[in-house]
Amino acid sequence: MSPHFRAVALEHASRLVNHGPTVLVTSAHGDRRNVMAAAWSMPVEFTPPRIAVVIDKHTWTRELVVASGAFGLCLPGAALVDLTYAVGQSSGRALDKFARHGIAASLGPVLGMPVIETGCAAWLECRLIREPHTEDAYDTCFGEVVAAAADARIFADGRWSFRDDNAELQTIHHLGGGNFVRAGGVLRAAAP
Amino acid sequence: MSPHFRAVALEHASRLVNHGPTVLVTSAHGDRRNVMAAAWSMPVEFTPPRIAVVIDKHTWTRELVVASGAFGLCLPGAALVDLTYAVGQSSGRALDKFARHGIAASLGPVLGMPVIETGCAAWLECRLIREPHTEDAYDTCFGEVVAAAADARIFADGRWSFRDDNAELQTIHHLGGGNFVRAGGVLRAAAP
Repeated sequence: MSPHFRAVALEHASRLVNHGPTVLVTSAHGDRRNVMAAAWSMPVEFTPPRIAVVIDKHTWTRELVVASGAFGLCLPGAALVDLTYAVGQSSGRALDKFARHGIAASLGPVLGMPVIETGCAAWLECRLIREPHTEDAYDTCFGEVVAAAADARIFADGRWSFRDDNAELQTIHHLGGGNFVRAGGVLRAAAP
Repeated sequence: MSPHFRAVALEHASRLVNHGPTVLVTSAHGDRRNVMAAAWSMPVEFTPPRIAVVIDKHTWTRELVVASGAFGLCLPGAALVDLTYAVGQSSGRALDKFARHGIAASLGPVLGMPVIETGCAAWLECRLIREPHTEDAYDTCFGEVVAAAADARIFADGRWSFRDDNAELQTIHHLGGGNFVRAGGVLRAAAP
């Protein structure tokens, strides 16, 4: 465990992904585990905290998620942009991508999903909510967040803080083809 | 119509929202129309281009969307951060938010949804795909993109180009409570 990570209250979990970061989806079942990148996820409910994520039905991740009924979402910081792109370009069916890429993972506290802290801003551990129709028709998987944690240097007291001194932890957002933008440059809207 | 807007090929439509921008959801039915902000949307399929967006069942937007079977998604640029927050904080049930906020809208070419170009980076016109269960259980509405366009100064030939000279058009991503980050600072991942 990273000494910088702190538990995030479940009522604040949706804020971790409210701004649309690209995530790493982690999964495990039996003695197998996997990690892939996903740009397509979003919160769908504040309380209980629920999210949706698109996981193609042909992926190894999807098999593991359905088998275990659980998955993790980890938010890579800017320092992990190469890794994020790499794990999105290959399948883990024939190899362990954690070992292949030297990714240190610990186990989530509730469901035992792999969670990545080094280089990541936050993670969420989720219980799959089975919705066979949307899983089949739209590859859209719903989940309830049952645990979450974040690096206190960038998310604390339920709020993000993007600053010059935490640029390497700032979330990344995939434009396509290996091009990402980094979340930064906070704009404060005027009160309506 | 803005002189800078160009049609986006439907095969590239998912790229407009791949990086998780906050959007303005537009709707119209009969002689009523509305606009609200939504941070929770994502692509779910490249071809045909399909997206999911969370629209609370108690909103006026939801009523209009279900009545017409259509909606628009407009991507506000950084110059519209105050407007985006403002239209997310009030209901359009009793007034026309376009008139209230001085928003110029034209009509989408396929479904006649209001689309906003001034200050926006892009828009997508979507046909609602009725999914009563997910609409009810998760407020999640699926749609097929039937037309899209973008300001060529920031999205052209199927690709985003975030540069110093188009900062006002760069997409915004809501952190919560009126705090947004602007997409910028492109990071190029190494080939795996």
